Amino acid sequence: MADLSDEAVALIQSASVATVATINADGSPHLTEAWIGLEEDEVVIATLSDQRKLGNIRRDPRVAVSIPSPRVNEWGLKEYLVIEGTARITEGGAAQLLQQLAHTYLGPDVVFPRMPNPPAGYITRIRIERVRGVGPWRRDTSAG
Amino acid sequence: MADLSDEAVALIQSASVATVATINADGSPHLTEAWIGLEEDEVVIATLSDQRKLGNIRRDPRVAVSIPSPRVNEWGLKEYLVIEGTARITEGGAAQLLQQLAHTYLGPDVVFPRMPNPPAGYITRIRIERVRGVGPWRRDTSAG
Repeated sequence: MADLSDEAVALIQSASVATVATINADGSPHLTEAWIGLEEDEVVIATLSDQRKLGNIRRDPRVAVSIPSPRVNEWGLKEYLVIEGTARITEGGAAQLLQQLAHTYLGPDVVFPRMPNPPAGYITRIRIERVRGVGPWRRDTSAG
Repeated sequence: MADLSDEAVALIQSASVATVATINADGSPHLTEAWIGLEEDEVVIATLSDQRKLGNIRRDPRVAVSIPSPRVNEWGLKEYLVIEGTARITEGGAAQLLQQLAHTYLGPDVVFPRMPNPPAGYITRIRIERVRGVGPWRRDTSAG
C-alpha cells in the first residue's frame, strides 16, 4: 500500500462522501459519489445493485477516488485526497458494509438500508497504488 | 445544452467545489478538484499553470464533473450533480476568472490569486452534453 499519513487514514474513515471515477466502455470518464471505508489497507465501497461503475471496473479495474477534506490550506483552498488504484469486486456483504458505513455517514443509531430483505450486493475493494491531491496525505518516510 | 433545472444552475454557481475527471494518456482516470462557474451555458474552470488535466483534455476532451449538493434525499443520502461533456481550452483570463470565482468560494472581499503578476493561465470551457447524479437536475420538459 502507498504510505498513507495518519491524516489520510482519518479522512478515508470520516463522513466525507467520496467521488469515484471509472472508465466507460467508450473510454470516457464516469463519476459517481459513494460512501467509503478502509479495510485491510484497501478502500471499500458497498453497492446493493449492479451499477454501471461495477461493469466499468470489470472491464478496466483502474479507478480514482477523490475525498474532500475539511482542512483549508494557506491559499484558502480546501484540501482533498486523491487515491489511484486497482479495484476488484466481490459478491455479497453489501448491506452489512452499508450499515457499518451508515454509522459514520448518517449517525450511530441509523438503520440502513431500510428494507426487509436487502440483496447480497457487491463490495468493491480498491488497492491503493498512488496518493495525490492537496494536503499532508503521504507519510513522511524521509524522517525515518 | 442539456436542459438544466434551476436547482442545477444554482448548484453550479454555488460555492460547492467540483471534482473534475479527465483521461490520462494510458486511459486511466485522473481526478482533481476545482472551482467552477457557468458562462454562456458552459462550465468554466480557471487554471494558472498548465496542469496535467489540461494536457489530458488536449488529447481527449471528454470530461465529467461532479458537484456535491447540500440537499439530502429521502434515503438520507447527499444529492450530487454529474455533468458529462466536451472541454476546450483557451489561453488567458485565468486570474480574472479566479478572482470572480473567489467572491463565491472565499468571500465577497477576498483578493485572489494573491500574487503581483499572475500568469495569463488557461480557461477550460465544458459544453454540457449529459446530466446525471442524484437530484432534480433536469428541467422537466414533459410538463411544458
